[in-house]
Order: sequence, then structure tokens, then C-alpha cells
Amino acid sequence: MNDIDLDFERSNRIGLPEIVYGQHKSPAQLADVAARFKQQQASLLITRCTPAQVAGLEGEYDPVSRTFLCVRREPAALPGIVGVIYAGTSDAPVAREALITLRFLGCETREFGDCGVAGMHRLLAHRQSLAQCTVLICCAGFEGALPSVVAGLMPQPLIAVPTSVGYGVAEGGRAALHAMLASCASGVCVMNIDNGCGAAMAARRILNLSKPRELNHAGLVDRSAERHQR
Amino acid sequence: MNDIDLDFERSNRIGLPEIVYGQHKSPAQLADVAARFKQQQASLLITRCTPAQVAGLEGEYDPVSRTFLCVRREPAALPGIVGVIYAGTSDAPVAREALITLRFLGCETREFGDCGVAGMHRLLAHRQSLAQCTVLICCAGFEGALPSVVAGLMPQPLIAVPTSVGYGVAEGGRAALHAMLASCASGVCVMNIDNGCGAAMAARRILNLSKPRELNHAGLVDRSAERHQR
Amino acid sequence: MNDIDLDFERSNRIGLPEIVYGQHKSPAQLADVAARFKQQQASLLITRCTPAQVAGLEGEYDPVSRTFLCVRREPAALPGIVGVIYAGTSDAPVAREALITLRFLGCETREFGDCGVAGMHRLLAHRQSLAQCTVLICCAGFEGALPSVVAGLMPQPLIAVPTSVGYGVAEGGRAALHAMLASCASGVCVMNIDNGCGAAMAARRILNLSKPRELNHAGLVDRSAERHQR
Amino acid sequence: MNDIDLDFERSNRIGLPEIVYGQHKSPAQLADVAARFKQQQASLLITRCTPAQVAGLEGEYDPVSRTFLCVRREPAALPGIVGVIYAGTSDAPVAREALITLRFLGCETREFGDCGVAGMHRLLAHRQSLAQCTVLICCAGFEGALPSVVAGLMPQPLIAVPTSVGYGVAEGGRAALHAMLASCASGVCVMNIDNGCGAAMAARRILNLSKPRELNHAGLVDRSAERHQR
Amino acid sequence: MNDIDLDFERSNRIGLPEIVYGQHKSPAQLADVAARFKQQQASLLITRCTPAQVAGLEGEYDPVSRTFLCVRREPAALPGIVGVIYAGTSDAPVAREALITLRFLGCETREFGDCGVAGMHRLLAHRQSLAQCTVLICCAGFEGALPSVVAGLMPQPLIAVPTSVGYGVAEGGRAALHAMLASCASGVCVMNIDNGCGAAMAARRILNLSKPRELNHAGLVDRSAERHQR
Amino acid sequence: MNDIDLDFERSNRIGLPEIVYGQHKSPAQLADVAARFKQQQASLLITRCTPAQVAGLEGEYDPVSRTFLCVRREPAALPGIVGVIYAGTSDAPVAREALITLRFLGCETREFGDCGVAGMHRLLAHRQSLAQCTVLICCAGFEGALPSVVAGLMPQPLIAVPTSVGYGVAEGGRAALHAMLASCASGVCVMNIDNGCGAAMAARRILNLSKPRELNHAGLVDRSAERHQR
Amino acid sequence: MNDIDLDFERSNRIGLPEIVYGQHKSPAQLADVAARFKQQQASLLITRCTPAQVAGLEGEYDPVSRTFLCVRREPAALPGIVGVIYAGTSDAPVAREALITLRFLGCETREFGDCGVAGMHRLLAHRQSLAQCTVLICCAGFEGALPSVVAGLMPQPLIAVPTSVGYGVAEGGRAALHAMLASCASGVCVMNIDNGCGAAMAARRILNLSKPRELNHAGLVDRSAERHQR
Amino acid sequence: MNDIDLDFERSNRIGLPEIVYGQHKSPAQLADVAARFKQQQASLLITRCTPAQVAGLEGEYDPVSRTFLCVRREPAALPGIVGVIYAGTSDAPVAREALITLRFLGCETREFGDCGVAGMHRLLAHRQSLAQCTVLICCAGFEGALPSVVAGLMPQPLIAVPTSVGYGVAEGGRAALHAMLASCASGVCVMNIDNGCGAAMAARRILNLSKPRELNHAGLVDRSAERHQR
Repeated sequence: MNDIDLDFERSNRIGLPEIVYGQHKSPAQLADVAARFKQQQASLLITRCTPAQVAGLEGEYDPVSRTFLCVRREPAALPGIVGVIYAGTSDAPVAREALITLRFLGCETREFGDCGVAGMHRLLAHRQSLAQCTVLICCAGFEGALPSVVAGLMPQPLIAVPTSVGYGVAEGGRAALHAMLASCASGVCVMNIDNGCGAAMAARRILNLSKPRELNHAGLVDRSAERHQR
Repeated sequence: MNDIDLDFERSNRIGLPEIVYGQHKSPAQLADVAARFKQQQASLLITRCTPAQVAGLEGEYDPVSRTFLCVRREPAALPGIVGVIYAGTSDAPVAREALITLRFLGCETREFGDCGVAGMHRLLAHRQSLAQCTVLICCAGFEGALPSVVAGLMPQPLIAVPTSVGYGVAEGGRAALHAMLASCASGVCVMNIDNGCGAAMAARRILNLSKPRELNHAGLVDRSAERHQR
Repeated sequence: MNDIDLDFERSNRIGLPEIVYGQHKSPAQLADVAARFKQQQASLLITRCTPAQVAGLEGEYDPVSRTFLCVRREPAALPGIVGVIYAGTSDAPVAREALITLRFLGCETREFGDCGVAGMHRLLAHRQSLAQCTVLICCAGFEGALPSVVAGLMPQPLIAVPTSVGYGVAEGGRAALHAMLASCASGVCVMNIDNGCGAAMAARRILNLSKPRELNHAGLVDRSAERHQR
Repeated sequence: MNDIDLDFERSNRIGLPEIVYGQHKSPAQLADVAARFKQQQASLLITRCTPAQVAGLEGEYDPVSRTFLCVRREPAALPGIVGVIYAGTSDAPVAREALITLRFLGCETREFGDCGVAGMHRLLAHRQSLAQCTVLICCAGFEGALPSVVAGLMPQPLIAVPTSVGYGVAEGGRAALHAMLASCASGVCVMNIDNGCGAAMAARRILNLSKPRELNHAGLVDRSAERHQR
Repeated sequence: MNDIDLDFERSNRIGLPEIVYGQHKSPAQLADVAARFKQQQASLLITRCTPAQVAGLEGEYDPVSRTFLCVRREPAALPGIVGVIYAGTSDAPVAREALITLRFLGCETREFGDCGVAGMHRLLAHRQSLAQCTVLICCAGFEGALPSVVAGLMPQPLIAVPTSVGYGVAEGGRAALHAMLASCASGVCVMNIDNGCGAAMAARRILNLSKPRELNHAGLVDRSAERHQR
Repeated sequence: MNDIDLDFERSNRIGLPEIVYGQHKSPAQLADVAARFKQQQASLLITRCTPAQVAGLEGEYDPVSRTFLCVRREPAALPGIVGVIYAGTSDAPVAREALITLRFLGCETREFGDCGVAGMHRLLAHRQSLAQCTVLICCAGFEGALPSVVAGLMPQPLIAVPTSVGYGVAEGGRAALHAMLASCASGVCVMNIDNGCGAAMAARRILNLSKPRELNHAGLVDRSAERHQR
Repeated sequence: MNDIDLDFERSNRIGLPEIVYGQHKSPAQLADVAARFKQQQASLLITRCTPAQVAGLEGEYDPVSRTFLCVRREPAALPGIVGVIYAGTSDAPVAREALITLRFLGCETREFGDCGVAGMHRLLAHRQSLAQCTVLICCAGFEGALPSVVAGLMPQPLIAVPTSVGYGVAEGGRAALHAMLASCASGVCVMNIDNGCGAAMAARRILNLSKPRELNHAGLVDRSAERHQR
Repeated sequence: MNDIDLDFERSNRIGLPEIVYGQHKSPAQLADVAARFKQQQASLLITRCTPAQVAGLEGEYDPVSRTFLCVRREPAALPGIVGVIYAGTSDAPVAREALITLRFLGCETREFGDCGVAGMHRLLAHRQSLAQCTVLICCAGFEGALPSVVAGLMPQPLIAVPTSVGYGVAEGGRAALHAMLASCASGVCVMNIDNGCGAAMAARRILNLSKPRELNHAGLVDRSAERHQR
């Protein structure tokens, strides 16, 4: 079997470092990956892993989101705040995956739990704080109505993340996914079910906006200034 | 081909008259059905029919809901009001089918249009009127979030009707149906997609509640008092 | 991680207390929730939980429905009886979840088991008792034909609950769900698969009907009379 | 394009003549097929065709089932009766396709319409006649509950045919198909949606049972006696 | 919880005894059921059970089909033979469930394994034996092509049973089910996925055909002669 | 039927004006809507309409995207450019809907057609121009691979829009939708199938980012400065 | 709207010329495309077009497959024969699309119609001719069993093409697609539903095998020898 | 239960030996199968098995692909090379199943891992080596875009294998399967999800092409020369 071929140039290319998808990888494979990140003095984020898969590695395991994080260089701070809203306790693992990924990417965050539409006063009580966010990430399972309501109230970019929380027709998250895609509210964009990590990266692409950007001689975007800063 | 075997005893049995499902029936079959209702001096409601199918019959065609109604005996008035809420103009055909069926069944109604969750102030502006209703019927397509929001605000029995309005993942109404079934709000019950007529009958079963009921000698519920009243 | 934000005002708002969805919550989270209910002297119902999740809490675990109940204040008795009909032993968990929730909500109940349509004489033998019920809840898996048959015989409001019982095309309960939604019987309304708890709440909304209702100054429905009664 | 290669030996092989599936065939192709059946002095049945497709051909078009039949040799009469039960007028096209195919195959038939489970007394009124049938075919759309009820009452072989009648979740017939496959009643077997013709052939295979059968020298079943009879 | 209400009259009504569906029943419930069958001196068949569920009961457990059988009275022998054909070893559990159910119902059987269409010579080698069968049951997973091929060669009633054997698009048996329903071969009828027991009952309904049948005074079919015989 | 209740405050609330969804609306309803927009001196965009629906109204119909636009006040110019990339000519209607909506919202745009991955050199030839865009919208049908490739090359926010272009498994756009949601590229967010208009609004939410934002006394975001500017 | 960007280098790159997908293109767009092919003196194949779309263009329209072909340079003859087998007349459009595309690509073909598995003797009669083919393409709708049977008999590369022919569960071709993918026969590979054109290109890739191949300086495969030959 | 009927003539018939599908077979059944292969001095490949199922058998177990291989006679070497490309580590089990099956069939192979489209430079770096392959097999999960990209660059026969790797809409591999079937690239053919073994057999059918082939007297293809060579 070949060695795993890591994409350390990704950050240089698109401004987002490689994040390791833990599922299906053996402890030995993850240890090998971790060693190579260490060699590069690069921070490491592994998603969807169990404690057993990352036992003995240098870093911190979060049991709610099932992520493993080792920050070696503090990422350059970005302007703006990403607000992560979620419907109920059951959605916390996905929200937490987003929050930890955002931390890994150098974004400031704010967390808004228990905002389910069945008791909308709880969401409305956060309006002032929500207005201070630059980008909103909104996680919900079951009928996935939360992003429709938020998008009707707030003007920011809104990234909806369906969660696999629910039973019957909601099992696996398709009902929430379809509700979010079909939202009659304006300009909601949607991630795959349970993809908190992807939502964080989409938010990071947005926060990145204000920076100037130039094509380098290789025909690719030059982010070397940013890289050196780190 | 056999004659159509109408169930004129249904009203006697379960308190709900037979309603004729127009789709797939030829004009000749509908004319035959209509003649037999006339012979019984019974009111007639045909759903899902075209003007061509009912041309020449005694009664009134409603083009929005595609229903045909001929009231021969005013139904006994029932206590209570059924409120029919819907999200947008595109949901009007289903809401209207419910309203006309409720009229056919003798229920007083109130109509609340353009209450989509993308601009929730419109719904909230109706709170006083909604509170006067006995039963609520709530029609929505796309992401079908409206019943979740209403059920979080109002205490009445709430019958949700998904509509086939929408495109992409919402096409045909499955996204709205699943969102309504998966609603995290308390005690929402759901009809088949576009089944405004069924929602009206479910509401009628509820309004009927306050009346005393006795088993007759045939082991069936005796509604003869009510029948004579008509 | 934030504390769980409980909605103790729900009962005030819509006449239905919050019920705790146990799935995905840790024992620590449930213990915290239970402590706050105790502080409010409020009765507590947790659905979809295991004995391990609620070990040590004050209350009673029912292994058939996987619910946990602690009644602290007897709910105000409601007029009327809810009949819970189910097809076979395999549907008992869902029926039992409905029965326990109804008990929690203060509704009188009656139970009708083994009423599958393959031996319809068993259902027909219960006709007298069924006629004494105010609302009927009907649970069935496999082909889900039971509500269609019941709705053709009885006049009451009928809430159908598909169960996830069955194999092959019936696995997971979609076949039963679709059959119930597509029922040609009049005015059947349907809950999500296995949602016995929701059916009980829908029944409770109906039993509640006879009571007067007024908007309070906050624009919400005032149920304070009822609350004080408790 | 090649000529159509007809399977005139099928009757010899399995006791069932070839039936022509009209859909997708041009009038010219059907005229060619018809000429070859005529040359063989064979009876011809075309299913799923429009009047325009068979215009000018020798035989009779049935607009309800959209079949075209030309009987050239009366089929040998078979012992037994096939009863065709169906739920409502909308199911008549499928029931009629079964009835005409049975006529083509030489089976005696009886027709039972408007037997939907919403008014079960209509089915029960036919019990005596149903008991005289050898095989039962049962067509229903919407929730497809009819075969479950019939199979719980009658002992004969029962062939269920879901129809594509219904809307919302019932559209296209999958809800009825799944309900029939998942039937908790004993020994119901099922055809594809709208396959009245196939149900007739399955019934014909059953009626055929009593006859002796011998392998001929080609290793195939010899039906030549039967063939000569014709 | 109510006692289980067994349908001991089913045999009298439709000629098929009740068979107990083991899945979801506790050992205590099955022990109770078994005791009542013993009291009636009735033979007992439990399907889809584990050894632990039936531990200590009188009878024999078959691990391949996961059925439990206790024959107390030999069923009256029926004329005819049911041939059970299956594609590969993986389909054996379903085929075996059919074979044991047929034994329980008093039918003579013949077994034909490893007849997959990828090596069709194996099926063709059985033609002589297959021709001696009265009814054929055909079990296959993956692409489910076997019944199409058999139906093109043999004239008997053919009951197709899709199995849940396969992976990818075949996982769970839907691919095989759809292939069997869509078979272009004549008169194949189909059971739910993995429903070997149902196929046996359908076969039993067919074998039963030759016997005279009379309506008794209760409007039900009188099978008392048959019953006494046992 | 009630009048249509337009949400003219939406722009004030979330910075996005109401856009009229033309499908299902009658010419009379659209004329009424147009009159009210004219009265407000507001620009009007109607999507998914036919020429017949908007005949006689003041504005311009685009047959490719089936949109109708009447600009009454030039929107305030926004900083940044939105690049709209699409795979082939068949995707042009969706791309064009996005482009016209962006024009309506005051965004500068650039168009990149025929960039399908089957001939990737065409996409790569646009790298310099793509790098000058602030936000990218990427429309593709069939296998929907284009956003994965673009997201692996470019750092901007990327909004993927699946189109309903394709046949077989791609028909209706689900294959492209799922591919985009499942993209292994970093931070791609996705709209409903064919939702070019929604993608434009999501892009507008992003372009809006740099502006300061304050909660007004009504607890809603005050955009009045922006409004007066217009 | 941009001009259509044709990929005339594709043949150079992968040995397969661009084929124009006609669906969704206007007559004007196709005329423009055709003019540019003419300018290049290149042969032109348009698939999935109507006569109206290509009216006035130089070339020949085939109504069965709905393709339009204009051969300007005879393609270099390839060694080997592609056999195209199909189940019934209804599958002819797909088979014909494959045959015409193969002609366009310079492949010799042989056609085998009416080979459905319901009468397998018809397929077996072609064994000698089938054995002379280099590659087999196998088109079938309904249950899609034909490739399984062919792959069990013949050793050549076998490309299965499901067709959208059938009704009920077979409608649209998913049943056939899944059966072909799930085939228990060895080494069957599968195309999208109705993709006769793609099957021809896959066959062309295979026939191409025997030719030497070298990387040119641009890092791409050099097919210039072949090109000059034309 | 019958003995397993192995198809040792398959190699003779279609040039491909029987491969044993391990799933659902007991250790005893596999031991029996292995003994019969040993008796024939035939090489044995078992797929989808656990170490426990094959414990004690002569041969080698590969834990990544879950295959068991025992080579008894080296297969005749075939001309050409099969390149196996895959997207990421998670796809390795399927790629490895293909590689081991190819080894079993006597094909030379080359392996290309970590070629996911999110970092396309990794694929492009292999262009020279890829160009030396005769046939390409391409395994990918998630959005399954890899074969589209490869097919746009390389001229060889390309067999795409979707893997069940991914979550949310990608779970189980349907998203990748549909993307591959819908590929707009030319002439991609597709296997069932995770079917690495089948892809190897399809490649083997292609490599086999150059050899002469003759029908033997039994009407089957004579591969005896090849067999003796072994």
C-alpha cells in the first residue's frame, strides 16, 4: 500500500489547510499522518475519529464533536466573528465540529444553543448578539426549519448545516437537508448532512474576502504573505 | 362495467358524507353520480375535476381548487371556527379545497394567506384572529416550516397539509411533508400532500366532538338525530 | 458547551408542557435537566431513553416504551377518553409511549391490542368500547391498513401512527406511513413513524377544545387559570 | 432495423401465448405484428395501446383498459372462475385489463367493483359470490389495503395488483405496492403496478394446475394436445 | 399490557393456521404464546427468532432459517409438490424458511440450490425434476433474474421471493424485488423481500384449490371437515 | 381570495428585496403585483415565468432564464465581482437567472461558459479572470463535478448550483446536487437544484459584508442609510 | 450569452471526437455548432435532437434514435466488430443510438434484436454470430436480466445499457440499471440509463487498445498519426 | 441442505474462473468449498470474508480488502497493464480488492493512490505512468468526480468503481455511483458500489481481447488451449 500523499500546498493554493478525515483510517495511518504534520511544524485537525484512533498522539480530543486538534502555530487572526446557532442538544456535535474547525482556522466564534423554532422566543432573545456576527452557521436536525427563520430575520451570509438528528422520516438528516435547500428564505446556502467542518471552511472563505489577492507566476493564487505571517 | 356503488350510508356511519374524487372519472360517470345524488336530494362535492368533466351539471365550479360544489341542503351548523393558514399564493389551491370542503360540511371558516416564515411578521399580525379559531389547518410547500412555527405559538389542534409547490428537492411536496412529520413542535398531525379535502374532514371530526354519541342496535354509531335535522 | 435552555413557558403558551427527548443526551445532561424540573416542582417525562441514561433519577422507567416518568403534580383531569388501538405485539412500544404520555398530560385512556386487519373480528369485537372514546390513536406497522379500516367504521378524530415494524419494503415504517397518508378513508391524520408521544400531544390538543381561551396582554394565549388549577 | 421476432412457441412451452406490449411500438410495427398473427390464425391481444396505434386492424379496442383484442380461435375452456375485485372506479382500467386478458386466455370471470375498505360493507355483501371463485385478483390504488382485508376473509389464491391511482405519496402506485407486499395477511402475492395483464396470466397458471403434464423429447413441456384442441 | 390475542379460528376461516412472527417478541411473550398453542394441541411455527428467544420451549430450532417448529398433529397431506429453487448459498435462509413452513402446512417439497443465472446449465440440468412440481417458489438476491428465466421455461404457478442478499444497489433486496416485479416473463407473482414463509402460504393456497368449499351459516368458509381430519 | 401580501420591508430587514416567484401565479395576479411595485417605485424581478404570464407589463423578459426584470431605481453599486461559471450550454438558463438577479441586486458580474470537466483546459484558461472575482457561483448538471474542481483551485467563497440537466440517474438534478454536497473539496456550499436566483442572493449577502451594521430600536437591523442612498 | 466553446482537441487528447448533446439546445445554437464543424471539415453527430432542431442542416436524421449524423471524412477503420444485442422493439432507440455512434466512430457493427430472456431460445440461436464479435453491448429495460445471461455465456467485454422502458417499478429504467449493476455474472460494466452513445464510446476505447501510444511533449497522448490518416 | 454446486466450467466457458463470494457463508461451507478447489488443484479467491471465516484454510488473508487468496497454479501471463487509481485512503479496500483479483487472474497491475480531485496536481503528476497502462480502473467515494476527470485526459478503457465512502448524502456510495453514471466524460463504464472484484474481471475481459477465439462443438467458446497452458 502506498504512503498517504498529503496536500501541504493546499493552504498556499486556496488559503485553507488540509484537514484529515479520520473515518476509515487505522491508528497506524493516523500516527504516520501526524508525524508528517509535526515534521512540517503544521497544526493538525482530525475529524470523525475515536479516542482509540488517536491514542498517544500529541493534541487534544473533543468527545462531543469527535475531533482531535493540535495547534502548533497560532493561525493569523481574521477580522469578523462567526456565529454558530443550533436547535437543540442533539445538534451539538455538529455545531462543535464547526466551532473547533473555526478555531483551527483562526476565526473568532460565538455559540447560540437551544434555538429550536418550537420556542422561538429563545432565538429572538439573541438578536443583538447575532447582529454582531459577520457570518452565521445554523445547525438543525428534524424538520430543519431554523435557517429559514434566521434568514428571514438577519442579513448576514448564512450557511445551513442539516444534522442527522431525528427518527422516522427525519432519520439520517434528509428531511432537514431538503427543508434547508427548499427554504423560501433568501440566499441560504447549504452543506452536506453533519458537515460542521465544511461549514467552517465555507465561513473561512468568506471572512477571507477583504484581503487583496494576486496571481503568482505559477498561475496560482499567492498566499505567501499570509503564510509567512504565521 | 358495473355501476358506481355510492356509499350514502357513510354519513350515518361516521358523520361524514361521501365526497366524489373526480380524477380519472369520465364526464359520463360523473353525470351518473350527480344524478344519483340529486335523486337522494343530497349535496354533492366533487374534487380534482376539470370544467370539462362537470360541464352541464347543476352546481358551481371553483377554478382555483378545481372543485365542484352543489349544496342542496344546508348542513347543520357546527360550533367553532376552522382557520386555514397558508404560506403563499401558490398554496392557495390546497387551502381553497379545504375551505370549500369545510363549507360543504357545515363549518365556519377563516382564511389567512401569505403567512410564509420568510417574513414572519405577517403571521404574527394575525395572532388575535388565530386565537379565535377552534381548529387550525396549515398549508405550505417548499420547506414546509409554517406548521412548526404556528404549533409553537398556538394551543389548538393543528392539521398540517404539505403542498406540491416547489422545485428541485421540493418538487412534488415530499420535502414539505417530511418537514411537517418531523416537526419538533408539539402535536402537529399531517395529511397527504395537497390533501386539503382530507384536512377539512379531519377538522370536521374534531368539531363534532362535543356531541353525544350512542351505539345503535346495528352496532354502528347512530347519527339519525343529526340526519333528521338536515 | 452551553447549559440546556428549557422551555418552561411552553405550557403557558400552548397548553402542552415540554417533554424531554432522551436520545443523544448524556446521563449528565439528563441529570441536569431532571434537577431543573425538580426545582420547578414540575412533572418530568423523558422519551427514547435507556435505563443507563436515567439511572439514579427520581421516577419510573418503562422498558417497553423506553420512557421515564416522574409525576410531581397530578395534571388537571380532562374530560373525554383517548382510545389507543394497535395491530400486534410488535407495535406495543409505540402504543405504550402514547399511553404514558397521555397519562403525563392528564388524559384518561383505554388500550386495544391485537387488532390487526388479518383477523378483523378482533377489532369488531371492540366496537362498543371504541364508541365510548373521544379520540382514537391507531398504531400499526407492516402495511398500515388498520387506520383505514377504523376510519371507515368510527366517527371520532383519528390519529394514525405508523410504526417501524416490518421487514423488506416495510422496514423502517415508510410503507405504513405512506399507506396511512394515502388512506382513502375520510379525515385520517398522521404522525411521524413511531411518534406515539406526538400522537398523545395531538390528542391532548383536541381534548382541550372545550375550554375558553383568551389572548393575554403579551399577545399570547393565557392559560394561567389552568396553570393555577394545577 | 430487424423484423420483430415473435415467440409463437411460447404457448407450447409454458401454456401461455405471447401477448403484445403496445407501448413504444409504431402503428406500422403493430400492423406487421398483426399480419403475422393472422397468418398463424392466432388470436391477438395488444395491451397499452391507443386507438391510433391499432387503427384499421381487425379486432376490438377497449378504451377503459386500452387493450385491443382479436379472438380468432376460441381458447379451450378452463375449469374454475377468476374473481376480479377492485376498490374504486379509478382502478377499473387495471381490473379491465385483467378481465380482457382472462377472456383471451379462456378463463371464466366475475367482476366486483367499488369494494374499497372505507365502506367495507360493500365488500362483505359479496362474500357468497366471492366464495364461488377459484382464484381472486384484487386491484387497488391509494393505500392498497383491500388485499389484506380480503386475504383475512377468503381462502383462495389471491393475486394483488397495485394501481397507479392516487396523489402525493400514493402517486404512481408505490404506496399501494409496498402495502400489498408488506401485508400481514397470509399468502398474498403481488404483481407490478398496473399489471392487470400479468395477474391474469398468473391466475391462468394456477387454473392450469389440474391438467397432467409430460416432458417431451426436447426437454420441454408438451402442450400439443391442448394446442390441437384449439 | 394486554395478553396476546391469538387467532385460532384463522385455519377455520381461510385454511391457513396462524404463524407466529418472532421478531420483537420477548422470551416471556413467546413462552406464553407457546403454552396456549400447547393447550390447543396445535402445532406451532415461530419465524424470525433467535435461539435465546425460544430457549426451553418444546420443538426444534433451525439456525439457517431462524425458525422454530413444533409439530403436534401431522397436517393432512395435500396432493402436489412445491419446488423451491434458489440462486446461491446466501439465499438458503429464505428458501429454508419456505421449506419449513411448507412442511408445517402439510406440503411435499423439493429443493433446488445453486441455480444462479450466471451458470445456467445448473438450472437446466434440473428440468425433469422441476416439471414434476405443482408450484414453484424461486428465491434470489442480487439482480433477481432467476424467476424471469424459470418463468420463460416452465408452465407452473411461479412465486418469486427476492432476498436481501447483495451489496451496493442490491443491498436490502430492492434491486431483486424490482427486477422480479418488472419481469417480462409471463405471470410471475412476487412476495416481500425475504418472505419465504409467505411464499409457502401462497403455495398452500394454490395446492388447496382442488377441494370443494362451502359457505357456512356464519357467512364464512367452512373448513370444519378438514379440521376434524386433523 | 385574499390579496397577495407583499413584503416590502424585507430589504429594510435583511438587505435583500422581495423577488416574485412567478410559477403558479396567474397573469392577473402578476399584473396586480406589478402595479403595487410600480406604486412603490420599486424595481421588480419575476422568476420562472412565461411570456404569456407577463404580457403587457412594463419591463423586459429574458427567454433563456425565463425571468422578467423592470429596473426602476439603479441599485447602489457594491464592491466586488461575482463570477458565474457553468459547465455547458444546457446549464445556461440557471446561470442566466443568477446573472440577471445579480444585476437586479446591484452586483457586477462576469460569465464563464463551457467549462465542463470533460475538457478541463477550458476552465484552466480562465484562471486569471477567475482570480479577479470576489465570489464564485458554479452551475452544473449531469455529474456536477465542476465545483469540486474549482474549489480545489481557487480560494474565494464558492456557491454551487446543481442544474436539472441530464438523463437517467441525472434526471432532475439529484445526482449533481448530491455530488456537490458530498464534494471532498473544502468549503463548497450548495443551493437547491436550478436555484440561480438564490445563489445570487447568497452572493449578495457575502458582498454586503464590509458594511457596518447596527440594530435599530425595533430590534431589527437598520438598513435605512442604504435605502436612502437608492 | 457566450459562444459555445467546442472541444476540437478532444480527439487528439483521448482518441474520441466531441459529440454534440442536442437536448436543451436551440436550432440557432445547433446551426452555429454545425457551421463550425463544417469549417473544420469535421464529421458531426448530434444526439437527442428533434427534426425541428436540425431542420436545414447538412446531414441525415434518424427518427428511431433521434440522432443527426453528417459524415465528412470516413473514420479510419478499426479492427474488430461490436455486437449490439437488445431485448425488444421498445429498446431499439437506445440500441440504434449505439449503432449510429459506432458508425460515426469507425467501428463495424452487428445487430441482434428480440433477445429478451422470456424466450431465451432466440438469444441462443445467435451464439455463433455473437462469438465473432470483439465487444458486446447489451440493451434492456424492464428487469434488465439480459446482460446477466449473456455474460454467463460469452467471454467478451460486455457493456450493459439499461433502457427507460417499462412501467410501475421499472419506469424510468432504475430497475434495469440496478439489476445490471448487481449482476452476479462476471465482469459486466454498466452505462447510465438510455446511454447508447456512451456505450459506443466505451466500446471504441476498447477496440482502440491494440494501437501503440506515446506521450507527446505537452504531456498528453499523441494521436496525431491517427489524425493525419483521416 | 444441498452441497454447494461450484461452476468449475466457467473458466472454460467465459475465460473467467469462479470467485467465491464469502459474505453469508459459514466457516464450514467455506472449508468445504476450499477442499473442492484443492481437489481440482485450482487457485482459490474468496472475497468479503473475515479472518474467522477462513481460519485454518491454506492461503493468505488480506485485511484491507478482506479477501483470501490461494494461488495453486500461476495463471498464464496476459499482455498489458491494468492501472488502479483511487481518490483517498478510505477507498483503498476497494482498490485493493481489484488489485488482488487482477493478480489472481494473471494481470500485471500498477497502483495510484491519493489522486482525489481536491488536489488535482497529484493526479497530473502520474500522467506518464498512467499512459503506459492498457486499462484503467478508477475508485472513488464522496462525489465520485475522479473518473470524469481521468476520462477527459486519458484514452484507455476506463472502468469506474464507486465506493461506499462518505457520509450524509454520500453514505453508502449512491452519490458517487450516480455521478459516475452521469459523467459527461466520454465512454466511462461503471460497476456496482464497492465492486473492485468485478472491475478486475471486466478489465480481464478486455485484456483477453487480442486472443483468437473459436466456437467448440458444444456451441460454447473453446478456451482449452489456454487452460492447458496453465
